[in-house]
Amino acid sequence: MKHDKPLGVFDSGLGGLTVVSQIKHHLPNEHVRYLGDTARVPYGARTPATVIKYAQACARRLMQEDVKMIVVACNTVSAVALDHLREEFDVPILGVIEPGAEAAVKVSSSHVIGVLATLGTVLSDAYPSAISKKDPRAQVFQKAAPMLVPLVEEGWTEGPIPEAIVRTYLKDILDAQVDTLVLGCTHYPLLSSVFDQEAKGIRIVDSAKATAIQLQRLLGDRELLRTWDDKGTLKVMVTDHPARFSELASRFLGEPADSFGMELVDL
Amino acid sequence: MKHDKPLGVFDSGLGGLTVVSQIKHHLPNEHVRYLGDTARVPYGARTPATVIKYAQACARRLMQEDVKMIVVACNTVSAVALDHLREEFDVPILGVIEPGAEAAVKVSSSHVIGVLATLGTVLSDAYPSAISKKDPRAQVFQKAAPMLVPLVEEGWTEGPIPEAIVRTYLKDILDAQVDTLVLGCTHYPLLSSVFDQEAKGIRIVDSAKATAIQLQRLLGDRELLRTWDDKGTLKVMVTDHPARFSELASRFLGEPADSFGMELVDL
Repeated sequence: MKHDKPLGVFDSGLGGLTVVSQIKHHLPNEHVRYLGDTARVPYGARTPATVIKYAQACARRLMQEDVKMIVVACNTVSAVALDHLREEFDVPILGVIEPGAEAAVKVSSSHVIGVLATLGTVLSDAYPSAISKKDPRAQVFQKAAPMLVPLVEEGWTEGPIPEAIVRTYLKDILDAQVDTLVLGCTHYPLLSSVFDQEAKGIRIVDSAKATAIQLQRLLGDRELLRTWDDKGTLKVMVTDHPARFSELASRFLGEPADSFGMELVDL
Repeated sequence: MKHDKPLGVFDSGLGGLTVVSQIKHHLPNEHVRYLGDTARVPYGARTPATVIKYAQACARRLMQEDVKMIVVACNTVSAVALDHLREEFDVPILGVIEPGAEAAVKVSSSHVIGVLATLGTVLSDAYPSAISKKDPRAQVFQKAAPMLVPLVEEGWTEGPIPEAIVRTYLKDILDAQVDTLVLGCTHYPLLSSVFDQEAKGIRIVDSAKATAIQLQRLLGDRELLRTWDDKGTLKVMVTDHPARFSELASRFLGEPADSFGMELVDL
């Protein structure tokens, strides 16, 4: 039956597992097939044409898993490739930007919103454009923060170095007096304690969580929710698999590395 | 004539332009064709099989430029793919590790040598193995420093943040009482003022410079030095070309961005 099929989720790397973690929390019965294009990570600084080409290859591979829906758990891909994917594939496709924008508009009372993201996401103007559609009064201040992904991958998620780096990136955004900050990259939730400290009094929107909540609504509306009682399964596929990736995946997923397998696939 | 042909130089990204900069300094009459695989940068954390596949594609593209020799201006590729390239192509192939190892052995008097490099280079053990071949008494302490490439690409090459990051990576190496430190990644020379400060009294070996010097000797031995008096030309090819890359290339090359063109190629 259609609603018993798995959800397909992909990202340029392993960061999208923070979205999977939220899906498992909000939709524990869903089967998930995750694909991380770890051979070509990161997409953040690549041109739109390259990102679109890579995203199409990822989505094609997920369609071979007979998925009922595709979640693009990557801000960079969501920013530039959603329309191309929707043209090519006939399953619903959900990105992370629209849910993040919706959540930001909902919690902001001053209508002054900050966005921290990769260079590709910032250059695409996807967040300002999605936020303005929902709240035409909103003013959006965004900042590219290319050091944060390597920081999270290095595991330096607390202490003076991440604090100094986050403080540097937040300076202009805080000067603009935002009351809400969107973490516009799936890696950033792992720095949440640093953000809590460096952006005191600012509401933090985690786009991974916002996406899982919107996914739940969307599956309900389309009668695609898996109704069985058993816990959904998770299959993680990667295009390159250095030894340290299991440990990194485990951090993003918030589960021990031996609780899931990683399968090497070719795109 | 054979010696009038260009040198082919490639790297995963633009960092290899620090090697080109040294080649232009030591061998100003040579024509250079540079290829940066910027669509798939960085190679540093990829598995050897993936790095070898990408390196072969780069070298094939350079052979189309009718080069007389190939310089692998990438420590990660030099660490894992040189033998594969030498099997496939019939021009001389020079990596950056052997020259860096040779220079380190020459300047170290205590035989205790430190190496800072990407994760891929460290895991390959290429530096310890190349250094031990030249000096069996040598003790080598290496450390993976994955934050340094993004730091250089962000342009944060001086101030408290790069100092704190470099200090963190150097701690174990300095504790081991090395007298010589090899900068085992083509990006690192841009942090030289930070290294001078954080590794006071340690001799710093820049593998880009060591490679240009060894290249000069090698071209001389093989009678491949270009003997014309005119300045050599430089052609820079990239596989992806976001706007900011011209500025980044200019920093690595030490020349204004409008002094060279960048051509987009497909591998």
